[in-house]
Amino acid sequence: MAQNIYDNPDFFAGYSQLPRQVHGLSGAPEWPAIQALLPDLRGRRVVDLGCGFGWFARYAVEHGAESVLGLDISEKMIARARADTPGDRIAYEIADLDQLELPADRFDLAYSALAFHYVSDFARLVQTIHRSLRPGGHLVFTIEHPIFMAAAHPHWIADENGSKTWPVNNYAREGERRTDWFAKGVLKYHRRLSTTLNTLIDAGFALNRLEEFAPMPEQIATFPVLEEELERPMMALIAAERR
Amino acid sequence: MAQNIYDNPDFFAGYSQLPRQVHGLSGAPEWPAIQALLPDLRGRRVVDLGCGFGWFARYAVEHGAESVLGLDISEKMIARARADTPGDRIAYEIADLDQLELPADRFDLAYSALAFHYVSDFARLVQTIHRSLRPGGHLVFTIEHPIFMAAAHPHWIADENGSKTWPVNNYAREGERRTDWFAKGVLKYHRRLSTTLNTLIDAGFALNRLEEFAPMPEQIATFPVLEEELERPMMALIAAERR
Repeated sequence: MAQNIYDNPDFFAGYSQLPRQVHGLSGAPEWPAIQALLPDLRGRRVVDLGCGFGWFARYAVEHGAESVLGLDISEKMIARARADTPGDRIAYEIADLDQLELPADRFDLAYSALAFHYVSDFARLVQTIHRSLRPGGHLVFTIEHPIFMAAAHPHWIADENGSKTWPVNNYAREGERRTDWFAKGVLKYHRRLSTTLNTLIDAGFALNRLEEFAPMPEQIATFPVLEEELERPMMALIAAERR
Repeated sequence: MAQNIYDNPDFFAGYSQLPRQVHGLSGAPEWPAIQALLPDLRGRRVVDLGCGFGWFARYAVEHGAESVLGLDISEKMIARARADTPGDRIAYEIADLDQLELPADRFDLAYSALAFHYVSDFARLVQTIHRSLRPGGHLVFTIEHPIFMAAAHPHWIADENGSKTWPVNNYAREGERRTDWFAKGVLKYHRRLSTTLNTLIDAGFALNRLEEFAPMPEQIATFPVLEEELERPMMALIAAERR
């Protein structure tokens, strides 16, 4: 079972104040890059794996999706998502992605933002998603980039010339990583980028796109702190299609 | 035009003493991983882009390839490849991968080992290869991994706990990298892994496999120095197929 850090009160309090939780999708600098990966949403049946407060679910319906199933491990997130969501085209359910069951041939798009790196058995999850998609269905998801996650102590350091540098070690040693982020010992799973892509291919997906998120110059001009994202990728964005 | 460092006498002298040049394919620790990506070679027409001394060309013919065209920018490499190669199923030619022209619909397999990171215009090269392959033809190649190449000063450092660590910076800043390796200022081109994969997809390839080379336990037992390859990947191995 995946760790449910989101219902930890300290974590939830901090997490809820992130710009992307206060302002929604447009508060995430990678959102324009995600949009470029999305298929036309009109008439689609969508499942959102790790739906949080429901920002994407509401976006999908506003852009013509026929229905959205939003799944999240956090009771607090689901409760707020339900409270924030009008209408009847979105259903929210509590679900653990490590135990997920989905109906077969049901969805046109499986979407997930920054949730899969909490999943222990990625191959099982990908096979479950593949079965739940109709032929030609899309999978679009973001994860923390393994360059960002691999090291035993992942944080900025200075190289011998004082340049901002990100440390990489243990890259080939996949498995648990624990970091402190709003709470002690948040549990994530490091997988090589090759493992992530080969798992998709083995499950029957064709890779359509890999993006290693880097901010655009106009984003850096508005938020200068984003410039450090040019040094190392924090996120990978992946679009695949059921063959 | 690509830099031809290989005909620099100092470089050539050092390079020729690498285990993989003295012992051939089995002198390269990644060779078993490359073999796992290769299609059955029997009856195939092969082009080897950056063939060096012709080790792979001879291997391909020994394993049933119908013909091999070996291409390299280095006159010294091609001269020795010709001298070392019996028979008439292998032809060697001098070629600059940045200016490459190939006949259309000619080859079943395009192979390249550690050459494409010297190429400035990767998109042009990939399009040229795609046109030269028959439908269903394979492209198998290795490159220096962008994690290995990105930083301004790429070499082992110690993190705050003394752990062996590889520095990453400038990852999103693609383009020239100069390093000293048997000669001063060897010119390579850094591209993000996403750029490499998306260039293949845009040219009409389907990605079949990405490997970020890590040695097997028995390789580390025999050559303990290889253990450091678990910290960060030095090479990416890629198998793609003409759609």
